[in-house]
Amino acid sequence: MIQNKAPGKDVSLEDMAEKFPLASKKNNTHFSKFDIGGITFGDSLIPIMAGPNMVESEKLIVETAINVKKAGAHFLRGGAFKPLSFPYRSDKYTETREEGIGWLGVAKKETGLGIITEVMEERYLDLICEVTDILQIGSRNMQNYPLISAAAKTKKPLMIKRHFGASLRDWLGAAEYALYEGNEKIILCERGVTVPHTHRDSSRFLLDLQVVPAAKEITHLPIAVDPSHATFWRPWVTPMSLASVAAGADSIMLEVHPDPENSAVDPLQPIDFDSFKKLMQSMDKVAHINGRHILNV
Amino acid sequence: MIQNKAPGKDVSLEDMAEKFPLASKKNNTHFSKFDIGGITFGDSLIPIMAGPNMVESEKLIVETAINVKKAGAHFLRGGAFKPLSFPYRSDKYTETREEGIGWLGVAKKETGLGIITEVMEERYLDLICEVTDILQIGSRNMQNYPLISAAAKTKKPLMIKRHFGASLRDWLGAAEYALYEGNEKIILCERGVTVPHTHRDSSRFLLDLQVVPAAKEITHLPIAVDPSHATFWRPWVTPMSLASVAAGADSIMLEVHPDPENSAVDPLQPIDFDSFKKLMQSMDKVAHINGRHILNV
Amino acid sequence: MIQNKAPGKDVSLEDMAEKFPLASKKNNTHFSKFDIGGITFGDSLIPIMAGPNMVESEKLIVETAINVKKAGAHFLRGGAFKPLSFPYRSDKYTETREEGIGWLGVAKKETGLGIITEVMEERYLDLICEVTDILQIGSRNMQNYPLISAAAKTKKPLMIKRHFGASLRDWLGAAEYALYEGNEKIILCERGVTVPHTHRDSSRFLLDLQVVPAAKEITHLPIAVDPSHATFWRPWVTPMSLASVAAGADSIMLEVHPDPENSAVDPLQPIDFDSFKKLMQSMDKVAHINGRHILNV
Amino acid sequence: MIQNKAPGKDVSLEDMAEKFPLASKKNNTHFSKFDIGGITFGDSLIPIMAGPNMVESEKLIVETAINVKKAGAHFLRGGAFKPLSFPYRSDKYTETREEGIGWLGVAKKETGLGIITEVMEERYLDLICEVTDILQIGSRNMQNYPLISAAAKTKKPLMIKRHFGASLRDWLGAAEYALYEGNEKIILCERGVTVPHTHRDSSRFLLDLQVVPAAKEITHLPIAVDPSHATFWRPWVTPMSLASVAAGADSIMLEVHPDPENSAVDPLQPIDFDSFKKLMQSMDKVAHINGRHILNV
Repeated sequence: MIQNKAPGKDVSLEDMAEKFPLASKKNNTHFSKFDIGGITFGDSLIPIMAGPNMVESEKLIVETAINVKKAGAHFLRGGAFKPLSFPYRSDKYTETREEGIGWLGVAKKETGLGIITEVMEERYLDLICEVTDILQIGSRNMQNYPLISAAAKTKKPLMIKRHFGASLRDWLGAAEYALYEGNEKIILCERGVTVPHTHRDSSRFLLDLQVVPAAKEITHLPIAVDPSHATFWRPWVTPMSLASVAAGADSIMLEVHPDPENSAVDPLQPIDFDSFKKLMQSMDKVAHINGRHILNV
Repeated sequence: MIQNKAPGKDVSLEDMAEKFPLASKKNNTHFSKFDIGGITFGDSLIPIMAGPNMVESEKLIVETAINVKKAGAHFLRGGAFKPLSFPYRSDKYTETREEGIGWLGVAKKETGLGIITEVMEERYLDLICEVTDILQIGSRNMQNYPLISAAAKTKKPLMIKRHFGASLRDWLGAAEYALYEGNEKIILCERGVTVPHTHRDSSRFLLDLQVVPAAKEITHLPIAVDPSHATFWRPWVTPMSLASVAAGADSIMLEVHPDPENSAVDPLQPIDFDSFKKLMQSMDKVAHINGRHILNV
Repeated sequence: MIQNKAPGKDVSLEDMAEKFPLASKKNNTHFSKFDIGGITFGDSLIPIMAGPNMVESEKLIVETAINVKKAGAHFLRGGAFKPLSFPYRSDKYTETREEGIGWLGVAKKETGLGIITEVMEERYLDLICEVTDILQIGSRNMQNYPLISAAAKTKKPLMIKRHFGASLRDWLGAAEYALYEGNEKIILCERGVTVPHTHRDSSRFLLDLQVVPAAKEITHLPIAVDPSHATFWRPWVTPMSLASVAAGADSIMLEVHPDPENSAVDPLQPIDFDSFKKLMQSMDKVAHINGRHILNV
Repeated sequence: MIQNKAPGKDVSLEDMAEKFPLASKKNNTHFSKFDIGGITFGDSLIPIMAGPNMVESEKLIVETAINVKKAGAHFLRGGAFKPLSFPYRSDKYTETREEGIGWLGVAKKETGLGIITEVMEERYLDLICEVTDILQIGSRNMQNYPLISAAAKTKKPLMIKRHFGASLRDWLGAAEYALYEGNEKIILCERGVTVPHTHRDSSRFLLDLQVVPAAKEITHLPIAVDPSHATFWRPWVTPMSLASVAAGADSIMLEVHPDPENSAVDPLQPIDFDSFKKLMQSMDKVAHINGRHILNV
């Protein structure tokens, strides 16, 4: 009976097999492995996606692309379409939309890096797909199933960020909608949950690293982690990134900005090029302890 | 002063005035009052919206409409488009979509009751607007700002359900998107939040009644409460409905079904016609203690 | 196996019968009724416990006792021993300890009101028992089982406040420790839980009224509610008190102070004598709708 | 600035300096370093405390002590006094109390390992202090301030476990009570918090690793982590232990049992001797990446 599936009893393996036939593991060693532009997810490599929160200008995104590539990043991240909790924007914080997508294209051409960017509306899918290698479904749209289905139908790889209030079961439900469209390149990304006890004015969410082994116990999909958004605080990004790799994350998304304190949005969270370079080297060492790697040998 | 260093600085009045110029109160006695099909929200009447979770069939929805009207309800609720946490549907649980919208139209013609139903995609707005008097934005779409903006632009009244993980600030941000389109008939609806400690296998959410005085302290919009979805358990619907009215709710949404145990979805939560009738009378008595009313005099 | 009792699956009736043989209901109509100094708990009367947070002075406590009695209160509350989250005290906020207990005795003699006050250490039990009619176990000590056992052994009635992080199961476990000592006069008191989304600088907790029907479904013990501590905000005390009575609470505890803004502690939450008097009359009306009463006829 | 209007203003540095003058850092490089039986906490070594949940028998505790010592552990943990959420005990799950404390003494003599064990009542402090090197305040007693004060007065080092519902501010308040008694050897231990979304039937809490950098930002006290209790699930102990070290934990507490599946309590969470040995080696490698170490060189 559906009624005695308890709320805390978020996921039982039986429930999984029944509700999420595509997302659930068939056996203990079942893990998806897939290629995105020559980079394999779900294998020994831990691909790194780095870049600014927003694609503020062509100059900024190209400069960042060059620098994160030099440090070993595998994908360039950056938002041209960007939801905010209220409809007003400062001068600085303006979505660059079509123009920003174009600038991502320039950065891609300059560096060869794959692109990941957020899609918020079906109507912009075609435009965004011309440039992006991975479509990001933001946490606010994790339960916008029509958008997920439409995005999945493009056959572009999808990364689905967990809503800050979503259980593992809710999150896998969203993945199932994408898999149901025949798209097998689905990445899940943890980015912090709301809890009664945050730690700081500038800490909005709690990074849930326990979900990494928990998710990998029941789903074959790769699990990424975004420590920048969860901590919302630069000094914690390095320890939480190392912890994410140690916990078994399959990919890491990081906010990197040439001039973090002047980032158009959330200036407390991006790290600069130097910190990113050092972090890449440390994460690579942690990865090796788990038989994985980040930097190319 | 130590007392205002409380944790959870979700909403300060200054923050409100700046971020939510349209949703925030201009002064302590500022409360919106507006008419929807002859029924006034935000006044001494507490309009009741009742009906089944899903518009299962024409017969079911018409029978329910007749009965909830007889008991004093002001609006008929029922979903024809209905999100689920995973893409699969049982035979019973099938969205009736265009057909269901038509059946709501029949029930409206038969009884004269206003209709409230959920919209999930912009493409169905025209169809739904032909029949509905209030567009419901479900909790899963509370942060789907493009959908809220598109729905608001139709000028139909909107009811925005709070996401189970959303703060008051997040919720008012969603309202601001709707108000920003020049639509002033916006209702907010509390329907339970996730907490670490639920009380029962069949209790998914905790009804947050404290948000009623909290919201009314800072916003002029009417605050509805839906005790059916939060409790997910028939025996608690009556006490929590009475408590909602006592706490100052401006409207109540209830799930009512002719044969609750055979409801196509969530059969543990709807109440039957008799219970609804008794509840209406009790709620009316509680309303009078606060100088308000539910049943017509 | 105990291990697969899921966390959200806080309480199943079977689990209850096994783990909490004394606290759990034997059947659906099983509710404890007991007398404390001529006042019956668990019956149609809803006893009201009112008074200041701290027993600041003899004058204050006697004046308050006289006034809350006049308005219809059944017990006088006030803390002489009082935990704080850190070891430092302002001049104003000093525990009056032995002296305060003496002043409670004076107020009792003057008015005949029963007394409820908090006990924090076994060593003060004898002293406190000379004066008090109900021993309060504060929320911080809800899992201090040795203290609960010692307090229960005195045979004085006990009121156990729910810890802000405790599930219903945790809370009933604490009650079981008390019942296990052969003390049958146990009252449970909800006083707010921590959640990710509070509503105001001055709102520390969320009053969980859904726990009232939830608890009464499985335990025969009377359930009290304390809206003052949960809301931490005077203007919300009245709506949440009415909602508590409407939800089925068996007793209400309220903070009342002759000069609320100058209360030695938490000056944002107590109400004054006039507000208390009006609230008593409104709560009494709500109680009657549920076939209960507060004021004597 | 929008960025520091975050919700959950739990701890501001100013608030810390005022409320917690002893626990708060005086400057950015202020970290306590202290010796317990020849082992330094707060330095480059990350001391490991390992052993069974309960001191079930002399044989079990001595065997475990020998094995965890061989693998490199620095302290032996084991409970002789042990709170449970309800007053009943199975035959297996019986507190061994005075006898158990004696057995810890035997294990100490055999191996030279320091001992850490829980104290629940002041009256047993003398007995426990004869054997233990660190007194553990369990999470249920984190707000039992009289117990903390009494334990601190013995001058034995104290480890204070965070309550599952406690904020960082609440936790540091408890530490302040201990420091206030002039005891400077205080260790804080994170062991999982309650959140709305757990991941598994057997996952009761969510390990909050973000609190490690958060706490170290404001307090000079060493921060330990206990991944066994939080995950409640053997397969997750290794990844979460590595993540704890990567996040900067100053000490790790682990449940190790010779025959985990037959542990008298919580048999899903202890790891066996082999797993512990491998984990020690992996944790040591992660520690080196942060310039620290676990195993002796």
